[in-house]
Formats: sequence, C-alpha cells, structure tokens
Amino acid sequence: MKALLLVAHGSRRAASNQEVRDLAARLRDLSGDRFGVVDCAFLEIAEPLIPEGIERCIARGAQEVVVLPYFLSAGRHVAEDIPRDVAGKQAEHPDVAIRIAPYLGAAEGVVPLLLEAAATGEAR
Amino acid sequence: MKALLLVAHGSRRAASNQEVRDLAARLRDLSGDRFGVVDCAFLEIAEPLIPEGIERCIARGAQEVVVLPYFLSAGRHVAEDIPRDVAGKQAEHPDVAIRIAPYLGAAEGVVPLLLEAAATGEAR
Repeated sequence: MKALLLVAHGSRRAASNQEVRDLAARLRDLSGDRFGVVDCAFLEIAEPLIPEGIERCIARGAQEVVVLPYFLSAGRHVAEDIPRDVAGKQAEHPDVAIRIAPYLGAAEGVVPLLLEAAATGEAR
Repeated sequence: MKALLLVAHGSRRAASNQEVRDLAARLRDLSGDRFGVVDCAFLEIAEPLIPEGIERCIARGAQEVVVLPYFLSAGRHVAEDIPRDVAGKQAEHPDVAIRIAPYLGAAEGVVPLLLEAAATGEAR
C-alpha cells in the first residue's frame, strides 16, 4: 500500500496549518485508489512533524511513502531539512520505500496554473 | 495593454529570487499575447519591490496590472501587505486598473498539480 504525505512548513497561524490539512483532504478525495493513505505533516511549528507523519503512514500499513513538499523554492528546507528527516526514517524502516517527490514550485504545471489564476475574475 | 506581475516574498538566498525571475520568464513565454508585459516583484528583501514593479508596468504602457501572489497560504502577506502596496499605487494611478488575482495556494488546479508531482519519477 502506498501513502502520500503532503509536507508543509508549518505556521504560527492556525488557519495556515488548517489550509494544509484541508488541502490534504482534497488530495485524498481526488487521488482515487492511487494512495491508501493521504495525510499531511509539518517541518516545524505544527503537528505532526515529518518523522511522526511518516511513522503514522507506516503504522497504517504503507510499504511506500511519497513525501510531497508543499514549498515554492528549493531553499534549505527542501534541499536539506526534509531529506534529513526522510533519511532518518528510511534508516529505521529499510523495508519501506520512502521517496521525495519534486516540490510544488518545480512542477511543470505550475506555469499554466499561474496563468489560470491570473485569469480568475477576468471579464470574459 | 495588460501587465502580469508575479509577486513573491523575496529571499536572502539569491537562487530563490532567481527561481522567481525564471518563473516570470516562463510565464512570459507561455502567456502568448494575453499580456504585453510579464514581470516579477518582491514583497521584501529582493528587488524590485511591489510598488516599483507596478510602476515599471505602468511606465511600459499598462492600463491594467494583474498582481499574482506566488504564495501558498492566506497569511498576513497575502491578506494585508500585498493589498496595502497595491492600494497605494492604485491611489497614485486612478486611471490604471490594478487587480490582485487569487494566490497560488487558492487556485483550483493546485490539487491535480500536486498529484502530478507525486507521480513524478514513478515507475509506470
């Protein structure tokens, strides 16, 4: 079974963390049967933290965990912090495949999506 | 003529600001003739700042400026700081229509885009 773990920075604003949880719920709805578990975790500030989020996926039976960074640029968080958390859990669970997907800002489709947002509210 | 101004936070990491500039260039390439000007600006730290970015669009002949927030959540920056900068410029240029598009995280298409990113590198 495959799990998808959306990973965001975490904010002191509860509403921002809730946006991430809502987004994970929408991912769950839209992902059909591609993932048996779809959940979210945070790099810092909010709960669950990434190691705990990965642990929960495995506890629910995931043999594969796709960690999906909800970040816009390849800063230290994407380049170092998330891989460090993942490597730690991978070492504890050599039988589970934990993979980091490209961060959102690197996704091909971000350009058409931005153009779509730019047209929102436009007079037709 | 219409201008599209991609607005990001701005980072101390030059590479992150460069990612935003590169993204603006890709937007320019993909937007066809919908915008006569496609550029980027930053809320803080990097140059140009938002007021200067809007000013440059107007100097290049824009009668309409679409400000597109490259942000993932509706925090203070999206809810207060960007609207404040825009309102200041709008007051100086009542003849130009300056409009704020939905921030990236609010775009409908972000969910399918995340699922696409999750599948990247996947065995087919």
